[in-house]
Amino acid sequence: SKHYTITLLPGDGIGPEVISVATNVLKLAASLEGIEFDFQEMPVGGAALDSTGLPLPAETLSAAKQSDAVLLGAIGGYKWDKNEKHLKPETGLLQLRAGLQVFANLRPATVLPQLVDASTLKKEVAEGVDLMVVRELTGGIYFGKPRGFGVNENGQEIGFNTEVYATHEIDRIARVAFETARKRSGKLCSVDKANVLEASIFWRKRVTAIASEYPDVELSHMYVDNAAMQLVRDPKQFDTIVTNNIFGDILSDEASMITGSIGMLPSASLGESGPGLFEPIHGSAPDIAGQDKANPLATVLSAAMLLKYGLGEENAAKRIEAAVLDTLSRGYRTGDIYSAGNKLVGCKEMGEEVLKSV
Amino acid sequence: SKHYTITLLPGDGIGPEVISVATNVLKLAASLEGIEFDFQEMPVGGAALDSTGLPLPAETLSAAKQSDAVLLGAIGGYKWDKNEKHLKPETGLLQLRAGLQVFANLRPATVLPQLVDASTLKKEVAEGVDLMVVRELTGGIYFGKPRGFGVNENGQEIGFNTEVYATHEIDRIARVAFETARKRSGKLCSVDKANVLEASIFWRKRVTAIASEYPDVELSHMYVDNAAMQLVRDPKQFDTIVTNNIFGDILSDEASMITGSIGMLPSASLGESGPGLFEPIHGSAPDIAGQDKANPLATVLSAAMLLKYGLGEENAAKRIEAAVLDTLSRGYRTGDIYSAGNKLVGCKEMGEEVLKSV
Ligand SMILES: CC(C)[C@H](C(=O)O)[C@@H](O)C(=O)O
Ligand SMILES: CC(C)[C@H](C(=O)O)[C@@H](O)C(=O)O
Repeated sequence: SKHYTITLLPGDGIGPEVISVATNVLKLAASLEGIEFDFQEMPVGGAALDSTGLPLPAETLSAAKQSDAVLLGAIGGYKWDKNEKHLKPETGLLQLRAGLQVFANLRPATVLPQLVDASTLKKEVAEGVDLMVVRELTGGIYFGKPRGFGVNENGQEIGFNTEVYATHEIDRIARVAFETARKRSGKLCSVDKANVLEASIFWRKRVTAIASEYPDVELSHMYVDNAAMQLVRDPKQFDTIVTNNIFGDILSDEASMITGSIGMLPSASLGESGPGLFEPIHGSAPDIAGQDKANPLATVLSAAMLLKYGLGEENAAKRIEAAVLDTLSRGYRTGDIYSAGNKLVGCKEMGEEVLKSV
Repeated sequence: SKHYTITLLPGDGIGPEVISVATNVLKLAASLEGIEFDFQEMPVGGAALDSTGLPLPAETLSAAKQSDAVLLGAIGGYKWDKNEKHLKPETGLLQLRAGLQVFANLRPATVLPQLVDASTLKKEVAEGVDLMVVRELTGGIYFGKPRGFGVNENGQEIGFNTEVYATHEIDRIARVAFETARKRSGKLCSVDKANVLEASIFWRKRVTAIASEYPDVELSHMYVDNAAMQLVRDPKQFDTIVTNNIFGDILSDEASMITGSIGMLPSASLGESGPGLFEPIHGSAPDIAGQDKANPLATVLSAAMLLKYGLGEENAAKRIEAAVLDTLSRGYRTGDIYSAGNKLVGCKEMGEEVLKSV
């Protein structure tokens, strides 16, 4: 039987609850395909700050690096909001992404037929939305140097960051995006601000250069402000979107809200080699933490992405995806996606229902 | 009688058509308040590139500076899309903003009762949306240095830009935002990415400092990715939003699309002193240019903002706003906002109907 080591990073807020559910589903679905796991739970984010003083302890990063895949819950909370930058939970997440070199962040935004009413968009606009945002995750303004605080030539205090992309950073994310688009509808839209920013002009130039390796994929370009509009106007026009770190942060969250059910949306962060990082796109939701109210399905679907993209175990992944759809079809809903006529359940009960469907 | 000099910058695409309509409405509404204008038409954008080789000729900038207010149509078009950066129409617009030092860009996004069906959002979500984005317009990554192309320490080609804000840049836009919020509902939301960017940490610090001058205004902070979601989830939660140049570019376009009628939305760009710049938020729409199909109402409403914010002529401004609402109530619609049961008209006829309502 196949055997993998998985690092579990429950993190903060609702993180532990959703990780617990997802781990059980992952175990069961995999075992039916003859797959076994060693799970290793490590602290990250606020939880790690509280127990070790650092948002990403060295032990956590090295365990993650040595494992076959990493499943993360959520990080952050009011408690650490005023911390200095190097002691913010978010900094731990950024260090983890950088440490694992997971430069490609895949964020699907799909409107499930069972949940089309959850969208704030009109039914005819939301129905059938099925897009994938490929976000560059370890470069751009998130990591660019120089950065910091200082004084300018007029003696004024300043805060500054650098948006910077190098050839290989763009080329590799572009290739992931073209490969992704090829497996989907063959349409890729690269989003930038090339009418204003040199970093975007360079981005567009490299993406266009890489396009010659993928003659079967249809490439288009769109300015980020227009993309933010088009996602609201007609999200179905998009299949695969590729963009930089900060634009991807904004647009993938916008796209996820368009589905109306961010409690449902998973993500995968992949590197050239080494373990991938899998996490729900929602946050740590401190207001409902520990109340058994969280929707675990985004993390369950992240476990499916872990199987598919992280381990190449497509069959086990499909079992999880099918189980989630089945559970929804059987009418089980957590509060965030509840609508009249369905059965309102908590985080744990939702997990039990998914297990029944696996 | 009062007398003002207005610089008209028709620009490209549908620019000349909408400027022509707006100028007529402006003239009539103002004359009823005893106001006279000298209009001076100057080239900008692609039109200026074609006639002078530069996207913002020196004569255009100096005419604009010497006038009491500037009314702009739209700039850009396929024809100049491949131009180098310093010869792009957009560069002319950026030079104009910088030259006039109009650092405060006010972008209202209002869902008019007559047009609520135009939104792709569900009626109950869109109805009553009435927010104002106050975007910093002459700083940040749009203008920050260093910027350009180069080679990094690994010999890789790079493209880079600098996001930078100094104390006085944040303080002055924050004051405009607090003043704006004070005149509206007294709620201001500052949008940044302070969990990742030093420029945003500094932004938040200064906005918070300025808040002490406005104890009557309720200040909140939101991360930009969350703001992009919340605009889709529940746009009515916002009244006044203040944010940096690039986030403002993205969020104001998203907000405008939420109204469903970007052909209706005006903007004002204001400096400490000197003439303001007033323009519709829509682009030059080259595909329908010269076909008498454009919606002139965004430019007509920009003329109203010119009267109100640029010249302090509130009464004349109100005449225009009332005339637009009246024209819509009488059922006149250009193609972009047409719905069954109304009267489909072109750009010119819409202008004539507004004139009747003034
Ligand atoms: C928590 C934060 C640092 C993070 C980001 O900005 O990347 C989050 O918003 C995300 O998108 O995963
Ligand atoms: C045309 C472009 C340079 C401009 C900008 O990015 O500011 C436009 O998108 C806007 O918002 O007015």
